[in-house]
Amino acid sequence: MSTSARRVAAELDASDPLAPYRDRFLPADDVVAYLDGNSLGRTPRATAERLASFVTDEWARRLIRGWDEGWLDLPVDVGDELGAAVLGAAAGQTLVADSTTVNLFKVLHAACGLRPGRDEIVASAADFPTDRYVVEQVAAQRSMTVRWLQPDLVENVTPDVLGEVLGERTAVVSLSHVDYRSSALLDLPALTEQIHDSGALAVWDLCHSAGVVPTNLDEAGVDLAVGCTYKFLNAGPGAPAFLYVAREHLATADQPIMGWFSAADLFEMADAYRAATDVRRMLSGTPNVLGIVAVQCGVQLVAEAGIDAVRAKSTRLTSYLIDLLDEAGATVLSPRAADRRGSHVSIQVPDAAEAGRRLVEAGVIPDVRRPDLLRLGLSPLSTSFAEVLDGFDVLRSVVLPS
Amino acid sequence: MSTSARRVAAELDASDPLAPYRDRFLPADDVVAYLDGNSLGRTPRATAERLASFVTDEWARRLIRGWDEGWLDLPVDVGDELGAAVLGAAAGQTLVADSTTVNLFKVLHAACGLRPGRDEIVASAADFPTDRYVVEQVAAQRSMTVRWLQPDLVENVTPDVLGEVLGERTAVVSLSHVDYRSSALLDLPALTEQIHDSGALAVWDLCHSAGVVPTNLDEAGVDLAVGCTYKFLNAGPGAPAFLYVAREHLATADQPIMGWFSAADLFEMADAYRAATDVRRMLSGTPNVLGIVAVQCGVQLVAEAGIDAVRAKSTRLTSYLIDLLDEAGATVLSPRAADRRGSHVSIQVPDAAEAGRRLVEAGVIPDVRRPDLLRLGLSPLSTSFAEVLDGFDVLRSVVLPS
Repeated sequence: MSTSARRVAAELDASDPLAPYRDRFLPADDVVAYLDGNSLGRTPRATAERLASFVTDEWARRLIRGWDEGWLDLPVDVGDELGAAVLGAAAGQTLVADSTTVNLFKVLHAACGLRPGRDEIVASAADFPTDRYVVEQVAAQRSMTVRWLQPDLVENVTPDVLGEVLGERTAVVSLSHVDYRSSALLDLPALTEQIHDSGALAVWDLCHSAGVVPTNLDEAGVDLAVGCTYKFLNAGPGAPAFLYVAREHLATADQPIMGWFSAADLFEMADAYRAATDVRRMLSGTPNVLGIVAVQCGVQLVAEAGIDAVRAKSTRLTSYLIDLLDEAGATVLSPRAADRRGSHVSIQVPDAAEAGRRLVEAGVIPDVRRPDLLRLGLSPLSTSFAEVLDGFDVLRSVVLPS
Repeated sequence: MSTSARRVAAELDASDPLAPYRDRFLPADDVVAYLDGNSLGRTPRATAERLASFVTDEWARRLIRGWDEGWLDLPVDVGDELGAAVLGAAAGQTLVADSTTVNLFKVLHAACGLRPGRDEIVASAADFPTDRYVVEQVAAQRSMTVRWLQPDLVENVTPDVLGEVLGERTAVVSLSHVDYRSSALLDLPALTEQIHDSGALAVWDLCHSAGVVPTNLDEAGVDLAVGCTYKFLNAGPGAPAFLYVAREHLATADQPIMGWFSAADLFEMADAYRAATDVRRMLSGTPNVLGIVAVQCGVQLVAEAGIDAVRAKSTRLTSYLIDLLDEAGATVLSPRAADRRGSHVSIQVPDAAEAGRRLVEAGVIPDVRRPDLLRLGLSPLSTSFAEVLDGFDVLRSVVLPS
């Protein structure tokens, strides 16, 4: 790589207000560039310390007393922190628990139940597999029909595409905020408004935007949402996911996996089930405390940096990488307009699996989506411009046609 | 307490082959006696070390590569370890993931689906709330009826009680191996056989027996089972639960929360969902790796000690405590026959909440079940006879009538 390119990267890093956050993460082995923060975020140092102290000082020392000393409220408390820092959600609407799949299952059932008499779910055929599977099974379980949108991968779901299927039969529209392949960022406020105009409810999957794109759920009037915490929220592999239920639906959203943690009084243990009247009604079994503690650490890091500053760096990082890729003649799939994409950049290659293997051997870790996509995830708190350049340098030499 | 009572306790500890395991746990604050291992097990030292090394050496250093280096197989691998050490289950039938509530939801749906044409679920009105809630909702979701057993709390579900409702309409019988209140241990092999004779499937909740009573699931021919790991398996608050599907049902058990982790090829991401043909078909979303690692540590401790040795000490501990309680005139609810109870002893008191508060103030931690039950959980790997005596001593002075 040329000296001038190096200088540009160094200047970008020097003027990056989030640059100090790089030191807040633990080091990795043999990594020239980690370009997969969109699959698994790096490990905050604070998380390592907090988990160790949780195990020895809270679990070991307090034992069962810990439940009364804060653990019982953790799903809601960390949900509130996440809501405030990341989702634009006022307190009392967000929970951290279970997996995204389980949460989507609950949330879709709840949404359909809120629109009795309507028998269609609208979803995108381009959506992430788990989302499509859950949409299909919820529809089957409720004797409803799925209307599949077939959007262009890059343009993705636009008001025009959605308008073709929305109607009086639409109960719920389930969409992903950022496309997992192309990185297309959907117009959440406009689509939510369009969905409401048809009388349907809007369910959003925020997996690829949570922690890196502001979502402003309250302002947009989103009805229900889910998302994961192990990508840009850096909460660790398979960390508990979140769900959001707008205040107006809290008293009436019924989900299908009722357990003791969703009951109005956890320890009443009565014969008849009475659902909690707050967001806890979306819980099921005992929440994983250790996992939620890790989520809290990740959320607090984003809260400290500020989601707007994170988003600003994200667009700078992806724009910078796209410019490099363009110059090198790569086939960039992701949208060119910065305000239309999330925090990863996808390129098409002939054999993504093989390209991925070669990159990892050379110390550059991308994400592979068979058959022909490499996703390059840029995580604003832990990725520097110099790292992007280093990664690109290797990519150009081992993957791109010379 | 008298010197001779002290001497007896010391002798019992001296001849206890599991006594050295006490040192394998981290210390607690202000605890004279921890009698709540049936709610939350103590913290193994190995778990604290393993979690710390997982965070810094696996998550931080290996990042996304960790999934290919073992994490993907963890739900099955740790399930297999649990199956071998605790459940009497050959490999390939047990998973560690999600919560007990979510797992029971999946397993009950799967079981009902395996008995089409039968429209009744049999369950016990004395069962733990989450179990009853899930039974009710699964029945409602499948347009089935619940036949509630109304057993005596101590005798619990006997072949006679069960025989009254079993019939040609019974699809599934859902029972708990050990009663959460009385500690009654059900005759799992005999009841399972009786259930099979009626043509129904047996689903067992092992929450209060896993890790302390051998279950021998394969030998007994149990069809499906679930259980938790935060009690006698010492995996931490809200740690991932387990589920078991007998080999004969593996190809046909269909659960309702299909996600990418239950698909035949996780990374195929095809349009149509194809379920895995092995026990992974019961998974849903991304499993919580950190939580499963903690389960593995807890399981390995029981494996090392041996489940039969654990059970032997458990019955010695509960018999010892019952003798003390009897002498003091306490109202013991739990069965007198050691082979008919689990590892906690329940006593009735006028106001359990108030008694619990007084005990905790005095450093003895029991479990309270409103309105009138104190559960005294004895965890064979971490509880000594001297600790039981210390706890009893306080109990007698602050709770029992003089």
